[in-house]
Amino acid sequence: VNIQTTPPRLNSALRAELEAKIRGKAKPIGALGRLEELAIDIGVMSGSLMPELGAARLIVFAGDHGITAEGVTAYPSAVTREVAKLILAGTGGANICARSVGIDVLLVDAGLGEPLDPHEVLVSAWCGPGTRNARREPAMSPELRDKAFHAGRDLASRLAAEGVGIFALGEIGIGNSSSAALLSHAVTGLPLPALVGPGAGVPAQGLDHKVAVLEETYARARTSDAWEALRQFAGFEMVAMAGAMVGAAEAGKLVLIDGFIATSAAAAVLALVPWTRRSFVFAHRSVEPGHNLMLEYLHARPLLDLEMRLGEGTGAALAVPLVRAAERLLTELADLPGEHPV
Amino acid sequence: VNIQTTPPRLNSALRAELEAKIRGKAKPIGALGRLEELAIDIGVMSGSLMPELGAARLIVFAGDHGITAEGVTAYPSAVTREVAKLILAGTGGANICARSVGIDVLLVDAGLGEPLDPHEVLVSAWCGPGTRNARREPAMSPELRDKAFHAGRDLASRLAAEGVGIFALGEIGIGNSSSAALLSHAVTGLPLPALVGPGAGVPAQGLDHKVAVLEETYARARTSDAWEALRQFAGFEMVAMAGAMVGAAEAGKLVLIDGFIATSAAAAVLALVPWTRRSFVFAHRSVEPGHNLMLEYLHARPLLDLEMRLGEGTGAALAVPLVRAAERLLTELADLPGEHPV
Repeated sequence: VNIQTTPPRLNSALRAELEAKIRGKAKPIGALGRLEELAIDIGVMSGSLMPELGAARLIVFAGDHGITAEGVTAYPSAVTREVAKLILAGTGGANICARSVGIDVLLVDAGLGEPLDPHEVLVSAWCGPGTRNARREPAMSPELRDKAFHAGRDLASRLAAEGVGIFALGEIGIGNSSSAALLSHAVTGLPLPALVGPGAGVPAQGLDHKVAVLEETYARARTSDAWEALRQFAGFEMVAMAGAMVGAAEAGKLVLIDGFIATSAAAAVLALVPWTRRSFVFAHRSVEPGHNLMLEYLHARPLLDLEMRLGEGTGAALAVPLVRAAERLLTELADLPGEHPV
Repeated sequence: VNIQTTPPRLNSALRAELEAKIRGKAKPIGALGRLEELAIDIGVMSGSLMPELGAARLIVFAGDHGITAEGVTAYPSAVTREVAKLILAGTGGANICARSVGIDVLLVDAGLGEPLDPHEVLVSAWCGPGTRNARREPAMSPELRDKAFHAGRDLASRLAAEGVGIFALGEIGIGNSSSAALLSHAVTGLPLPALVGPGAGVPAQGLDHKVAVLEETYARARTSDAWEALRQFAGFEMVAMAGAMVGAAEAGKLVLIDGFIATSAAAAVLALVPWTRRSFVFAHRSVEPGHNLMLEYLHARPLLDLEMRLGEGTGAALAVPLVRAAERLLTELADLPGEHPV
């Protein structure tokens, strides 16, 4: 075991009680569809028939990737920092989605090539000027993996203590569809080529080149251990996000998993700390081809399917109102008259 | 022509300008998926590269249905009024969804069996104590159809003038899945049995009975004229909702179409005033089986698929943040540096 965790206690009778409670609500049985399943999951996760999740926050983790030196991206690494600056300025995709659901954004610099200047919505967890080139050497040292992971976990713990109960997690990092394909392959054993897609854009040398580079990269380190795979292949933003997933789950809070990159981090977390599954809600089905495979592997069915592939936590943010509605189904929807007084 | 309307002027160059504008945004081409299509539709509908839709409102139309006398429902007609009272009390499905997206609810009494007492969120457009039994006679007179339609149209005009630009429309009315199946069949020619489903619940006498009653009902009046079909088969809430769709479209505003019942009203409106299509956004794919057929017929692809079948505008309300995000994509997302200055 690489991560010592204490799962919040599960009340084994609660699921049946939640199901009965929802059957007693003023609506035809099952008429709220997936919101009813989600409400039950929220109740179980919260250990309550009257869950109060609290505030929602979009947290975008940023990091650069040494593997961009191998021509596997359509954009240069410096674009990550440009996008980070847009998010700080409030004009990124993350911001428009967060504002549309009425939540605030935090940006976590886990390892941009050049750190960002301080900003009120910036959390610095800088672990280095991007990762090393994973084709040649491990993306990061064990120490920096631990540092990034604990930074994410501590941030989630702190936010949970401040009242955040819905963690919509996203990422930016040119090159991270490569890192995510490698991490996903290592953790799940799904065929690597099927996990390789265009990410933010098909590289000039084509997808076949990207596959070849990633096959070589995986062959260098060949591991199926999730903790080791995080350091060999992931970016700092992905490791920090994995830490935040664990921290939120330990606090009994809900995590909205965004697209392919976030799902690869979630898969690593689930391999390491399987009980965290109860806190995870998959938000959006990305058009990045590897995402579907990973969702199948994890038996996960996202709430939204808007054919997006932007990252930045856009899908996670847009799912927040659905979580809210499911929570309110338990706490605010009228009961049927009779056994359950209105 | 039964309805005199003036479409807002279309700017034929605008679609191409909107597409170019979105290509110049700080994100990979197409990476916001369906939000990009929606943004273009919003721009065209608003006649602007910088649309400002304004406020969103959930408007739930309520009415009772004489055809409930034929044993086609699982619940008695009086339940409509009980649900209406929950909505006024803020504890209905409509309310929990509206609150989850931060919008207010209006309830329109278009023809409950017994009118409701005045309430601050109630709009009275009462046309009678429910419709007549359409199996035996037209559901309503031409005069009452016109009254219900104009009440909805005038309400939408008034709200548009007050700044509402996103009309999430829903309905309650025990029996209205029967009325919607008849209206849909009349307007589209799709086979009636395929349009008959459980609605709020399978009636005690079974779905075959419901189909048989509706076949007889249709045979009595046999019309493919949408305006005549509204009076023969629809409920007051459906006619008022159809009026609101026209009123909102005339004002150049956006209408979120909820489930099967709302879609049947939309199909009637589209038959009568085809240009209104530019204002319609289909919000949610209901599990009511006829809905899929109608969506195919209308070439419509809803934004959400949450397996709900509650009505009350729940699906329409939950789609509001997606409309907001699409609008913000045009107005708040950064442009790429270069031709389009950041």
